[in-house]
Amino acid sequence: MGENGDTEIIEHHVDEEMEKKRILLRSHGSSFMESVTPSERDGHSSTQSSHRLLAYSDALISIIATVMILPVAHTKVQDNEELKESLQVLLTTKIAVYLMTFLIVTVAWAAHIRLFQVIERIDDCLALLNLACMMLITFLPYTFSLMATFPENILGILLFCACVMVLGFIQAVIVVYGFSRPFLLNDQIQVSENQVFYKHHILKVIMRVPIMCFFASIFSFIFFQISYVILAIVIFLPYISQSLKWCRSKAIGQVEETPDSMMFYTYHPNEPLSKERVEAFSDGVFAIVATLLILDICEDNVPDPVMVQKQYGGSLVAALQNYGPEYLAYFGSFATVALLWFVHHSLFLHVTRTTRFMGLLNTFSLAFVGGLPLAYQLTHEFPRNSRNELEAIQISCVIIFFAGVFQLAIWVAALFSERETLHPYVRYGGREHAFMLAKLALYPCVALGTFFLTCILSKFSASIFHLMEITVPFAFLLLRLLVRGGLALLRLIFCPDGPETRSALEEEEEEEARMPFNTMIT
Amino acid sequence: MGENGDTEIIEHHVDEEMEKKRILLRSHGSSFMESVTPSERDGHSSTQSSHRLLAYSDALISIIATVMILPVAHTKVQDNEELKESLQVLLTTKIAVYLMTFLIVTVAWAAHIRLFQVIERIDDCLALLNLACMMLITFLPYTFSLMATFPENILGILLFCACVMVLGFIQAVIVVYGFSRPFLLNDQIQVSENQVFYKHHILKVIMRVPIMCFFASIFSFIFFQISYVILAIVIFLPYISQSLKWCRSKAIGQVEETPDSMMFYTYHPNEPLSKERVEAFSDGVFAIVATLLILDICEDNVPDPVMVQKQYGGSLVAALQNYGPEYLAYFGSFATVALLWFVHHSLFLHVTRTTRFMGLLNTFSLAFVGGLPLAYQLTHEFPRNSRNELEAIQISCVIIFFAGVFQLAIWVAALFSERETLHPYVRYGGREHAFMLAKLALYPCVALGTFFLTCILSKFSASIFHLMEITVPFAFLLLRLLVRGGLALLRLIFCPDGPETRSALEEEEEEEARMPFNTMIT
Repeated sequence: MGENGDTEIIEHHVDEEMEKKRILLRSHGSSFMESVTPSERDGHSSTQSSHRLLAYSDALISIIATVMILPVAHTKVQDNEELKESLQVLLTTKIAVYLMTFLIVTVAWAAHIRLFQVIERIDDCLALLNLACMMLITFLPYTFSLMATFPENILGILLFCACVMVLGFIQAVIVVYGFSRPFLLNDQIQVSENQVFYKHHILKVIMRVPIMCFFASIFSFIFFQISYVILAIVIFLPYISQSLKWCRSKAIGQVEETPDSMMFYTYHPNEPLSKERVEAFSDGVFAIVATLLILDICEDNVPDPVMVQKQYGGSLVAALQNYGPEYLAYFGSFATVALLWFVHHSLFLHVTRTTRFMGLLNTFSLAFVGGLPLAYQLTHEFPRNSRNELEAIQISCVIIFFAGVFQLAIWVAALFSERETLHPYVRYGGREHAFMLAKLALYPCVALGTFFLTCILSKFSASIFHLMEITVPFAFLLLRLLVRGGLALLRLIFCPDGPETRSALEEEEEEEARMPFNTMIT
Repeated sequence: MGENGDTEIIEHHVDEEMEKKRILLRSHGSSFMESVTPSERDGHSSTQSSHRLLAYSDALISIIATVMILPVAHTKVQDNEELKESLQVLLTTKIAVYLMTFLIVTVAWAAHIRLFQVIERIDDCLALLNLACMMLITFLPYTFSLMATFPENILGILLFCACVMVLGFIQAVIVVYGFSRPFLLNDQIQVSENQVFYKHHILKVIMRVPIMCFFASIFSFIFFQISYVILAIVIFLPYISQSLKWCRSKAIGQVEETPDSMMFYTYHPNEPLSKERVEAFSDGVFAIVATLLILDICEDNVPDPVMVQKQYGGSLVAALQNYGPEYLAYFGSFATVALLWFVHHSLFLHVTRTTRFMGLLNTFSLAFVGGLPLAYQLTHEFPRNSRNELEAIQISCVIIFFAGVFQLAIWVAALFSERETLHPYVRYGGREHAFMLAKLALYPCVALGTFFLTCILSKFSASIFHLMEITVPFAFLLLRLLVRGGLALLRLIFCPDGPETRSALEEEEEEEARMPFNTMIT
């Protein structure tokens, strides 16, 4: 009876609240509203928000950047030879190919971001052109691995250059198309009087790459080594031109080119990079790395019914016991990837604006995250207590360490211009500053500690390593308590007679949360 | 000189505009602002927006749902036997496993959506609990394939049930945790007086599944067939309970339970489903399908240098010519996936609210999209002009047809309650209505046409099929012209003396765009 009455009240409430929610949803600035507002304003019914197109592109590019670790991870390491030796073969070819592919794909991704910071709205035609771009970008890794496998054959160079040239051409078409329909452009450019100048500047920057590639493909017929030099220049061109510009400005003494002078296509380290897209790209990399692990398990570790009948007398449990270490390795690696994502998420929650330099550091961090499937493959492949197993654990530690350290570096880089890039909470002196530092430092510290443990303890095994990986989440849960305890300890040491230590516990907690870390230790 | 002047003007403009942009960005409701506003309001500094966590979860779940096609696609089909025969073996086991896994994972995903429609903000603790959920969800496909490979062994059932029970337990913990910190909840529940009722209702719905699984695992020791029946009931429970409720309401005559009466955990077909998450999940599926294709190419089609030297006398071109059909198949399949995404994108741009039923249709469409790697594998595997090749093309057509038809079905379902679910432009009578219909109907028509062509023309080959796939984008570009032409033709036939046909061309175009399709033909 009472419940019936309750339900009616709820019904009434819900009806009202549904309406509210609908209104909220509409005013919330969802992609639908974004897509319709400009079209209604300008009467171009086919104009759309580019948000979902970009998210899809980010997903595609992040997957493509990461899956090239698979040929590395699937290389069978012979157990009889020492890991170091076989690893040297790996290192020289496949890992280099993976890292270079990752770099090339992220360069293409950065160019894509830059392009769609200028063109903010799309129509069907641009969407189709962008999908053509995506098709070519997903084909790039293949042409590059051809080039790496047959370095003296010009076919690889030609295919790679052809891809890049077509990509550059499509980008140029997108720019020309965008400028011919100004309502598609960035609002700033739309109202600017210098549209023609912007257009020529952007086209000039975009066309540099295909033109260099054109020369590289010409030179490949004459003297193919030059082609590689030219291609290397293409990738490092932005950095070279930026440093040249810097040198020239120092030599002549002109310093009026402030970071904000020309925000499109400058390659300045402080050039803004869409934070949303950096997050989407990182999410894609973390998601694909986490699932590559289970993919291997699903493909390889479902035993064959016939084999189970023959070898284990039909006992599935006995058959699966062989795979025990792999399950443990899976859960351990998944926990590590998920927590590295969690740290990344916590960091970017407090980042208000991403710069090009932070994006570069993020790319380095992600390149190491992408290497985790290799670590996973290595740690469960060797018999227990062999020297190989220890070395595999050490490689895992190195990968995790660098992935974590570059995340920490993002934060440090952000701290240098904290007013523009960070939320007050995590700035130097903010109330979450110490906690954020602890979060970011946890993985590098754990990885470093484990590395030294493997050097000291010869009994250390992959199982222990994976169990450690699974326990790290609890460390994160305890972290807040630990940081609070550590701060209290510091305060006790540096100002033991402070009146606040004697105040009531609850008040203390609240004050502590507001008390900045650096005022506490200075 | 003039350029210098220009640059200065731009600098000035840009400085101003940078400021504007920054303000815009801040007021834009980015995840950062969302995350900070409630925390500043309530003083809970660790409260965060759940947006990125959900996007990451969607990416993980969509990849996991889709990668289970790989064991199907990688099954070697012997060329000497007929495709139909080997396909029957495939169909009975692996495709069924793939479809069931897809269904189970999407059920878990729907439960995840429902949970985070109630809990709208997260803190670190909830983020870690959610990552634990993700770990278990990514492990579900493996336990399910164990269950499918060894249907008579109870270990598979036990593992699967254990996973689901732990998942249910974590979800319950999340709900209890969320209700103990009301600022994390949905705004409607936050202000509601019936929080306790909501909490009990939600816990009751969530705990149903693990309790059923508990019984299934108990029964597996006694009579394992019953376990499967119980597990089937778990999946179809919402639909069963919904239809039972409907029957009861018809029998007793109570119809006051309107669709909106209780918007959380109702399983009503009109229950809202977060549109953003449906899009994110679909993007993930489309992205992983598109990249699975290139992944195969990168792993298998880089020839071995030693082999090239031996078999082709060092001629890379000759070695790569073998792979010609695979490149064509890749570009064709990528174009198909990309365009199906494009149609999906165009449709959801005009959808304002997603219902549970539309989500179900979307899931069916995506299940077929996930089958495309199988189609790709089949079409390039057989020698030219064999009967197998034609059958492989027919299978591809069937897959593409159903993927397209279910997209069309989403729109039709939306049209039934168009006031709530569709933008006026594409409603019955809207100015984009005919164009949207043409876009959605293009792929089913092309697939159907190709299917019949393969029945008539025995010369039809996979190369022609893939070339057709590559030309479809141009059909999309021409579609607007075609629709306009078609409408003009219809008008000419049905009202040839209308005054508007004689008006000036530009005026006519504008009028035509506003002229609804149905008023034209009636």
